[in-house]
Amino acid sequence: MPDEKFELKVPEGDDRPRLVCDTCGFINYVNPRVVVGAVCTWENQILMCRRAIEPRTGFWTIPAGYLEEEEAVIDGAKREAWEEAHADVDLDCILAVYNVPRISQVQIIYRGSLRSPKVKPGLESLDVALFEWDDIPWGEVAFPSVHWALNHFREVRDLSTFSPFANPEGQTGNELLEPDK
Amino acid sequence: MPDEKFELKVPEGDDRPRLVCDTCGFINYVNPRVVVGAVCTWENQILMCRRAIEPRTGFWTIPAGYLEEEEAVIDGAKREAWEEAHADVDLDCILAVYNVPRISQVQIIYRGSLRSPKVKPGLESLDVALFEWDDIPWGEVAFPSVHWALNHFREVRDLSTFSPFANPEGQTGNELLEPDK
Repeated sequence: MPDEKFELKVPEGDDRPRLVCDTCGFINYVNPRVVVGAVCTWENQILMCRRAIEPRTGFWTIPAGYLEEEEAVIDGAKREAWEEAHADVDLDCILAVYNVPRISQVQIIYRGSLRSPKVKPGLESLDVALFEWDDIPWGEVAFPSVHWALNHFREVRDLSTFSPFANPEGQTGNELLEPDK
Repeated sequence: MPDEKFELKVPEGDDRPRLVCDTCGFINYVNPRVVVGAVCTWENQILMCRRAIEPRTGFWTIPAGYLEEEEAVIDGAKREAWEEAHADVDLDCILAVYNVPRISQVQIIYRGSLRSPKVKPGLESLDVALFEWDDIPWGEVAFPSVHWALNHFREVRDLSTFSPFANPEGQTGNELLEPDK
């Protein structure tokens, strides 16, 4: 698909420019994408995965990925925990809804628990581990939103009811990651 | 874009079939779409809009619509209230995250309040109104998820903190709408 075949124009009846294929007239409606994930614990330990794929290969993340078509958000978050860490999880509530506007991502992050500490890397993970808070490899965390989720989780880990977090004030997900928490 | 130009096949490196254009090779990655909306009140009254567009023209809904690219969810929900009802709203928390898997929709619905009762129909509304609970036109509500949102709102309208609702048990958004609440 050479890019020059697509032209940016406002389709009839629309109010925004979209990429339209010069050859077949296909309108590429681009929608924000939904990422679903979870901060899951076994006793006091938090499940994390070391990424086997770009971006940020080798860095640590919570299990998360793109929601698929016709999939409910909570099912997508469970599927990602299984695919990335072979973790069988129960998700109890929504921890946070984050936005990364630059890449049009909406992230819906659950709080959950593992049914068993038996985890192992899936295809997209180099390694998986259960970390005590102080053992989290803070200098090797993959994305700002993983920092947000871990810290927000810590704030409410003992609360049964809370309203989901949004991005920390003023943060957009474009922040450079500092080597400390 | 005649449909027969697109073929359903699994692109290299992918694990699911996608629609691929026979002419230009374009891969139509379809992602779930995010709808953002709000149940907003002025004093004890709930803002609703009568739809000027398909589907369900002439039926009543809460302000809601598709999140745009690079837009934060809360900003999208405010924009929809403005576009559909010229309502200037403050949104205080997430009321619900619903799924309508059949059409791959994720709906993120806020709870909010109007800054002024001055509202008027936007381009996509035939009419807008502020309804007391008992005056809501229950027989003319546009979608199951609007019923869910209104009833969930009623459950928590006096609570400062709660966890967002999901779909009512067993409901998928495909339910036929009954003429009563």
